[in-house]
Amino acid sequence: MYTTKFSEIVQKYDVVLFDSYGVLKNYNGIIEGARETMASLEKRKVPYRVLTNDASSSPKMLSEKFEIGGLNIKTEHIVTSGMMAKSFLSTKSINGKVLYLGTENSSQYIIEANKEAISISDYDDSLIHEIGAVVFLDDEGYQWSTDINKAVNLLRKRTIPVIVANSDKLYPVAKNDVSIATGAIAQLVESILNRDFIHFGKPDVQMFAFAFDSLIKEHGELNKSKVLMVGDTLHTDILGGTKFGVDTLLVLSGNTSVKNAESMIQSTGVAPDYIAESIAH
Amino acid sequence: MYTTKFSEIVQKYDVVLFDSYGVLKNYNGIIEGARETMASLEKRKVPYRVLTNDASSSPKMLSEKFEIGGLNIKTEHIVTSGMMAKSFLSTKSINGKVLYLGTENSSQYIIEANKEAISISDYDDSLIHEIGAVVFLDDEGYQWSTDINKAVNLLRKRTIPVIVANSDKLYPVAKNDVSIATGAIAQLVESILNRDFIHFGKPDVQMFAFAFDSLIKEHGELNKSKVLMVGDTLHTDILGGTKFGVDTLLVLSGNTSVKNAESMIQSTGVAPDYIAESIAH
Amino acid sequence: MYTTKFSEIVQKYDVVLFDSYGVLKNYNGIIEGARETMASLEKRKVPYRVLTNDASSSPKMLSEKFEIGGLNIKTEHIVTSGMMAKSFLSTKSINGKVLYLGTENSSQYIIEANKEAISISDYDDSLIHEIGAVVFLDDEGYQWSTDINKAVNLLRKRTIPVIVANSDKLYPVAKNDVSIATGAIAQLVESILNRDFIHFGKPDVQMFAFAFDSLIKEHGELNKSKVLMVGDTLHTDILGGTKFGVDTLLVLSGNTSVKNAESMIQSTGVAPDYIAESIAH
Amino acid sequence: MYTTKFSEIVQKYDVVLFDSYGVLKNYNGIIEGARETMASLEKRKVPYRVLTNDASSSPKMLSEKFEIGGLNIKTEHIVTSGMMAKSFLSTKSINGKVLYLGTENSSQYIIEANKEAISISDYDDSLIHEIGAVVFLDDEGYQWSTDINKAVNLLRKRTIPVIVANSDKLYPVAKNDVSIATGAIAQLVESILNRDFIHFGKPDVQMFAFAFDSLIKEHGELNKSKVLMVGDTLHTDILGGTKFGVDTLLVLSGNTSVKNAESMIQSTGVAPDYIAESIAH
Repeated sequence: MYTTKFSEIVQKYDVVLFDSYGVLKNYNGIIEGARETMASLEKRKVPYRVLTNDASSSPKMLSEKFEIGGLNIKTEHIVTSGMMAKSFLSTKSINGKVLYLGTENSSQYIIEANKEAISISDYDDSLIHEIGAVVFLDDEGYQWSTDINKAVNLLRKRTIPVIVANSDKLYPVAKNDVSIATGAIAQLVESILNRDFIHFGKPDVQMFAFAFDSLIKEHGELNKSKVLMVGDTLHTDILGGTKFGVDTLLVLSGNTSVKNAESMIQSTGVAPDYIAESIAH
Repeated sequence: MYTTKFSEIVQKYDVVLFDSYGVLKNYNGIIEGARETMASLEKRKVPYRVLTNDASSSPKMLSEKFEIGGLNIKTEHIVTSGMMAKSFLSTKSINGKVLYLGTENSSQYIIEANKEAISISDYDDSLIHEIGAVVFLDDEGYQWSTDINKAVNLLRKRTIPVIVANSDKLYPVAKNDVSIATGAIAQLVESILNRDFIHFGKPDVQMFAFAFDSLIKEHGELNKSKVLMVGDTLHTDILGGTKFGVDTLLVLSGNTSVKNAESMIQSTGVAPDYIAESIAH
Repeated sequence: MYTTKFSEIVQKYDVVLFDSYGVLKNYNGIIEGARETMASLEKRKVPYRVLTNDASSSPKMLSEKFEIGGLNIKTEHIVTSGMMAKSFLSTKSINGKVLYLGTENSSQYIIEANKEAISISDYDDSLIHEIGAVVFLDDEGYQWSTDINKAVNLLRKRTIPVIVANSDKLYPVAKNDVSIATGAIAQLVESILNRDFIHFGKPDVQMFAFAFDSLIKEHGELNKSKVLMVGDTLHTDILGGTKFGVDTLLVLSGNTSVKNAESMIQSTGVAPDYIAESIAH
Repeated sequence: MYTTKFSEIVQKYDVVLFDSYGVLKNYNGIIEGARETMASLEKRKVPYRVLTNDASSSPKMLSEKFEIGGLNIKTEHIVTSGMMAKSFLSTKSINGKVLYLGTENSSQYIIEANKEAISISDYDDSLIHEIGAVVFLDDEGYQWSTDINKAVNLLRKRTIPVIVANSDKLYPVAKNDVSIATGAIAQLVESILNRDFIHFGKPDVQMFAFAFDSLIKEHGELNKSKVLMVGDTLHTDILGGTKFGVDTLLVLSGNTSVKNAESMIQSTGVAPDYIAESIAH
């Protein structure tokens, strides 16, 4: 497999979009070399955004976590899939409260959309006609067996919009261990009900379009052919970037390893334009 | 929609296979008229079997529950999907203990196959190399969030047989309410791992073949064209019976109602040979 | 089922997005009343766009067909899924020729993106390394058995971008008859290769975003909460509009009939904000 | 990856089930060493069956083809998926003619079930009410674009049993080239109609049960734990054998190569009990 240097490739592009986990940080903290690379981009005033499938924390909280690791990423340069859910809830007519599966933290995205939030933990059958939408935000903050059953029974009786604010099925919790994520829980309910919910997050292109629009507002007209998406996951970062019509670079510092990159590209058919070991060099 | 009388149709056949829930009993107890119909079949010595997607109880326990409701169904006339799992574990080489997700009751199917059973509740990572197979038996008996995550991490690291002893996604708990069943939990894990486990239960034909073989042992040669499968669910009872090559009768006393039978048959393409209101008349 | 009048609902919105087939026209020609309604919108200067899953004809050709039926829809007010493919091919790096499955007409979308187009009919194995991307444009213009097999064998050996310029699986050819569309042919190949191609067309939001951007360029800032999407198909028009965050109106003049609207909304969980018989009144 | 010798493993078992293509023969003819191995089994009177996903040829034709290659496999030792379709059509009530997609050769399976066969090539809309079932038998013998469209339109209007006599999606035509098979064409129609047809062939267990029953008739009681399934394909031969509850041996002389066996076992989770290079040694 032919790899290249990130620092050489990035020079061909005007704008860079980064995934977060596996590119800038991992279970161990900030990835080696990421501080220097991001500092260099800042210095050379290269416009960029960080696009993360995350609805459990706000951009501000994510920015603060980067800060603790010594990485300076401004809140307004972070685009979360939770922000897509917030944007949806802001413009779409919703008749009632928004029921959520997630932590109280995650419910901020609903409150910022000026909707009334109610946790699935606090929901019972008597409230069924007060609910106008359901949002899957996080895998924590509720009792799976009791509360997922509540959601299934509610949605068998009401046809209301259901939003999945993060389609990821897994997230890493240690070098070799993972945890089931919101996307998998939502899919369990979709499969039981035989329905397709509204999903936000890569590979869907909304986050790319949102980031691109905000970059245009800040920097004026931009050309998609001069945008590079950098990610560690073929079926979210690379597929999504490709679908949005921009070039893509796969880093081997996260989900996709040197060992399996070639066979995964072959079996999925999702091919990045470039491959680099990490964004370090 | 043209319905017919069960009592008239059954006379054309030599053998009857019944689903249990929605045909013989429901959330309310024994379905009206079932006692008389079953007594009449017994009296006329019509060979029959009850085929149920259930791995949480033994045939003996199910027989006793029928008894309480005044329905006399012998243990040896009940075929459960748990018995298919037991049969699998008896003949297939398994190198190690059998890890199960379910109640202690359900683990009897493993013990009767002469395998050592260990509950997912008692499992931790240190036991990873002692496990030779995993069985999904019931939705109760463990903590969903903790224990399903344990199963996912185990199966990411070991390629061992995984058996789903009941593929049903839901079971009814009240007139209008359902509960998520083992099959949906197993499918969540399959979807996360992108794998297909080994499923037992209707519409798969193993239970039909098992019942047919046991009927032949008891009654001598039988002709499939003289066997009638009676069920309330299109995608398990009717599809499975059809696939096994026998005629099918849909009753409207359970999952499929008078109101939606026609549109469900049209949309699924699964058509019974006959439709009757129940087995009562 | 509660239906409402299109003319009353439309007054609450500043911008209208229309699906074409089943809303403005059908197998019989222009739908009754569509001329008057569109003329009235033009007169009141209500900004609108027509969004159609179609990669077989150019907007110009579609505009001319409307013209013949007496409906005046300007070329620049029509957004096709083929235009999304063209946009993709314009910005994304493609190393080689673009192989297409479709008629010569449909290949215009490739040529307008300044890429070299080659029909699957003219392709043979000796050209395998000259191909940089594959596009599914139409179900006509090639021999299915020979040419779909060629595409399968090419894509087993090369990992290059594959674009499906219209995801629709069927199109109507008469009152009760349909024809298999590009989307189904592409899905056949995806299923055989176990890959996900890049799909354009509703319910994906690119066409909505494209239309919205072009409306903003023409009319200045617009508010998504004042946009109405009008369509006849739940899983494309209504789901896509909802996902884009705008309100939706289902018309019963096409794919969804008065008879089955309620059961389809219930079974899919895709609920429009309004239902009207057609855009006529 | 640890491989073993076929000749050593086979001694532990009383009965052997073989896949055909990739195990006994390939695009080049009889696989090296297969003649000697099969002759040795015959000599030692080891009971065996050949199980092949094939509905285009009769067992007799397949036996004759083996003969030409110098391999002596009796007709009655061959089990085809077409025979499962024949068995289905023999016992299940069918009200009308059986419409088939396939060659005239393949229609023998219908005729032997004493049903009237009609080719999709000869079908037109006027015959719609004479058809009682549809069978997918082969990818040849009809015009894909015209005739698959006919099948789609017929099945939108009639809910009758649809049988897929071979679920394979591809078959090899040369060292590196494949051809789309019946199973993929059937799946195209299933996907368009959103229905599940009745599939025969590995990994479904009917063929295993059929072979096992015929072996018992010939040799008396047999123990499943002494049966070995030998195949080259994980998701048909190995998954099906495992599901039937017998031990499995993967050979690397066909679909699964030395190079990718380990990663395919890991990614599918389908693990054979043994791996051997071929049945030669």
